[in-house]
Amino acid sequence: MILYHKNMNQSTKIQLKSESVLLDKNEIARTADLLSDYIQYLNSVAESQKYEAPESSINLPTDNKMLEVIEQVLLKFKNAQLKYVVVVGIGGSNLGTMAVYDAVLKDQNQQTNPLPQILFADTVSAKSLQNLINILLTCSKANEFAINVISKSGGTTETIANFEIIYSALREKFIDIDRRIIVTTEIDSKLWLESTAKKWSTVSLPNIVGGRYSVFSTVGLIPLALAGLNIQELLGGALQMRNACLQSDNQFNPALLSAVVTFLHYKNGVKINNSFFFNPELESLGKWCRQLMGESLGKQFDSVGTEVRAGITPIVSIGSTDLHSMAQLYFGGPKDKLTTIIYHSETESKLTVPNERMLPSLIVGINGKSPAKLMDAIVGGVAEAYKMNGLPYVTLQLPTISAETLGELLQFKMLETMFLAHLMNLNAFDQPNVEDYKSGTKKLLEST
Amino acid sequence: MILYHKNMNQSTKIQLKSESVLLDKNEIARTADLLSDYIQYLNSVAESQKYEAPESSINLPTDNKMLEVIEQVLLKFKNAQLKYVVVVGIGGSNLGTMAVYDAVLKDQNQQTNPLPQILFADTVSAKSLQNLINILLTCSKANEFAINVISKSGGTTETIANFEIIYSALREKFIDIDRRIIVTTEIDSKLWLESTAKKWSTVSLPNIVGGRYSVFSTVGLIPLALAGLNIQELLGGALQMRNACLQSDNQFNPALLSAVVTFLHYKNGVKINNSFFFNPELESLGKWCRQLMGESLGKQFDSVGTEVRAGITPIVSIGSTDLHSMAQLYFGGPKDKLTTIIYHSETESKLTVPNERMLPSLIVGINGKSPAKLMDAIVGGVAEAYKMNGLPYVTLQLPTISAETLGELLQFKMLETMFLAHLMNLNAFDQPNVEDYKSGTKKLLEST
Repeated sequence: MILYHKNMNQSTKIQLKSESVLLDKNEIARTADLLSDYIQYLNSVAESQKYEAPESSINLPTDNKMLEVIEQVLLKFKNAQLKYVVVVGIGGSNLGTMAVYDAVLKDQNQQTNPLPQILFADTVSAKSLQNLINILLTCSKANEFAINVISKSGGTTETIANFEIIYSALREKFIDIDRRIIVTTEIDSKLWLESTAKKWSTVSLPNIVGGRYSVFSTVGLIPLALAGLNIQELLGGALQMRNACLQSDNQFNPALLSAVVTFLHYKNGVKINNSFFFNPELESLGKWCRQLMGESLGKQFDSVGTEVRAGITPIVSIGSTDLHSMAQLYFGGPKDKLTTIIYHSETESKLTVPNERMLPSLIVGINGKSPAKLMDAIVGGVAEAYKMNGLPYVTLQLPTISAETLGELLQFKMLETMFLAHLMNLNAFDQPNVEDYKSGTKKLLEST
Repeated sequence: MILYHKNMNQSTKIQLKSESVLLDKNEIARTADLLSDYIQYLNSVAESQKYEAPESSINLPTDNKMLEVIEQVLLKFKNAQLKYVVVVGIGGSNLGTMAVYDAVLKDQNQQTNPLPQILFADTVSAKSLQNLINILLTCSKANEFAINVISKSGGTTETIANFEIIYSALREKFIDIDRRIIVTTEIDSKLWLESTAKKWSTVSLPNIVGGRYSVFSTVGLIPLALAGLNIQELLGGALQMRNACLQSDNQFNPALLSAVVTFLHYKNGVKINNSFFFNPELESLGKWCRQLMGESLGKQFDSVGTEVRAGITPIVSIGSTDLHSMAQLYFGGPKDKLTTIIYHSETESKLTVPNERMLPSLIVGINGKSPAKLMDAIVGGVAEAYKMNGLPYVTLQLPTISAETLGELLQFKMLETMFLAHLMNLNAFDQPNVEDYKSGTKKLLEST
């Protein structure tokens, strides 16, 4: 059957549709009902405007106090000479920023655009660190850059190591470098204490908001605003989507609808979730989605402590590139994937295939068409192939790729994940097994 | 149990080790025996030096005639002014080139290196095409670039469309552009005929060699050689590995060992294969691995035509980045993944965490250490966590990241895939379901 998300008064820009032979109207209604108490609870969290529940990341889009703090940081750090915003952070501390940056700002930066660029230092790699340092050393004054160290706990090995290396490489040339450091961390973490003691600009985020839910907090907003993003639009999109997803009627609630579809397939053994983006600039958004689903739903124990080893493995595909590498598996292989096709059809383009072609005998039907028109046909063919093979898929149609639609998308995914965790009886907010490798690493670091 | 690949006379640089609770010595031997006839057959293919069997990509590393053709192309296209090598191709036509380029050459290019850069045009995207065209328009003469159009069949929509757009954007400024075009395609494809009629430099590859097995043919070697890669070293590594993997004793044959381990896990329901690279520059190699495994083993029908919907879903992880997004799922979630840890520990580095630190109270044990030393400890902790959780894994230790070790790795993976397909009773060389979306796309292209 085909499910359509009824977009009441066009309250959200994003439009969801789902098609699957597995779905049954009554089962969808029954499953959605299982979430009605939880949605009521989320509404009370939203009304409270407080940061007490783990779900309270949904209050970030309306947090005016936070915006005032950010305004102060921008006043100090934003200036006409600013060229580089360095984000030193990994996982939940940089993936949301990277997702929005790559989707909305990065292409503009490749042109002769006055916006500052964001440079990321995440994993420990001598090559990329050296490259980043070389770029910063081309600056003539510290005002030309800002370094934002982001670690919620304050104790992330890669982040601290990278910051120490960058700082020591720059301190000689930029003697006033301390003025250009912003530290984002939990209040009273060791990093907070060291940073305030050095009088670096130090900003917090609510302790209860986890890294993978923190893109609308100071974590994401400060570097994005410094790089020129309209964060009001981002938060506006997030708020619109939040409100749509707090409705109890599943027909009007896209995150509820998508969570129910995903859960019903999961129960039927469909344990891989494929986010298939047909705009290459959304690849980093895919990486953010991967963390959100992977960490939130991959759990050894359920909410009452029974060992379950639950989880849905998120994968990311980029069209049309991956049609030439993964389509054979997707269409011919095991029916173990639920696919979400995410696509914005670009309307404007100066480039088209010429009508007078060099190779006129090859490929009929492309003359005079823009790349976007060709992609429309490819996406149409892909949806057709999913249908033909009886493979389940959801489509998310994006009318634009903008700060606003990115805000919607990120918020949609976070609420969908909370709904899914609730249906799967899992804690969406912890990540206990990440410690499994950290103890071994710590031992090795201290013994060598 | 732990399996070690016995590297006779250090014939290959890469060293394989595997650890899994699932493995049993006798079962490994029995399974390896199932491949002994196939290995004998592969030896006869290698001895023939011909391109008749679908497996004959294994003869590319010793094909001197091909090298002579490539030499002619280089004589014509390589020159001191060459800045940009444009690869117009997708899937099997560019993923191998991208894998080697990103791993071995790209970082050098970011510095002030005299090597030419490779620019890729694969999917249809107005933004990236415009960007590529803008870069080429900075050239003052056509000698500063070479455009290599690669399509085995000659009928790839994206490739033909992109080439037409690029050509028409450049022809006015570069009136002698035809001199700078190289077309790589099958002899007698429509593209071959059009290209030779226009007197463009036109090179072939053996018809029997499929796109995903073509990295050591003209497809990969021409752009890589133009960009400055030592292709003799690449082919040398490939040949060393091929010879190791044609041995019948499984202890000395790393591809056989790895295929047997993967197959035994697959039979036990482990249907996701995770390539976990701890050097970020190997991410593109991961994308090549994805196509190889996805297209070769994702099959609706087995070799005798029975519907099986077989397949192993390849995923790619990048350490340490993905430890901060996927580790929770990997260590705590379903035991449905076999992981291969692929790592080269960089020995030299000018950068180290200073001993006099800014944040001395945070993270003990990193003082004076290089990024590579930190990564060693992280990789060690990860292997420990796999072991502790009873999760199966294989390690591939790379002594260097070079043309030679890339040659080994690519050849290793291709032979492993052939062995796996044989064990799974699948055709490793076709991709019939790719047509599933193409018919719909064609219809849409011709009707709009």
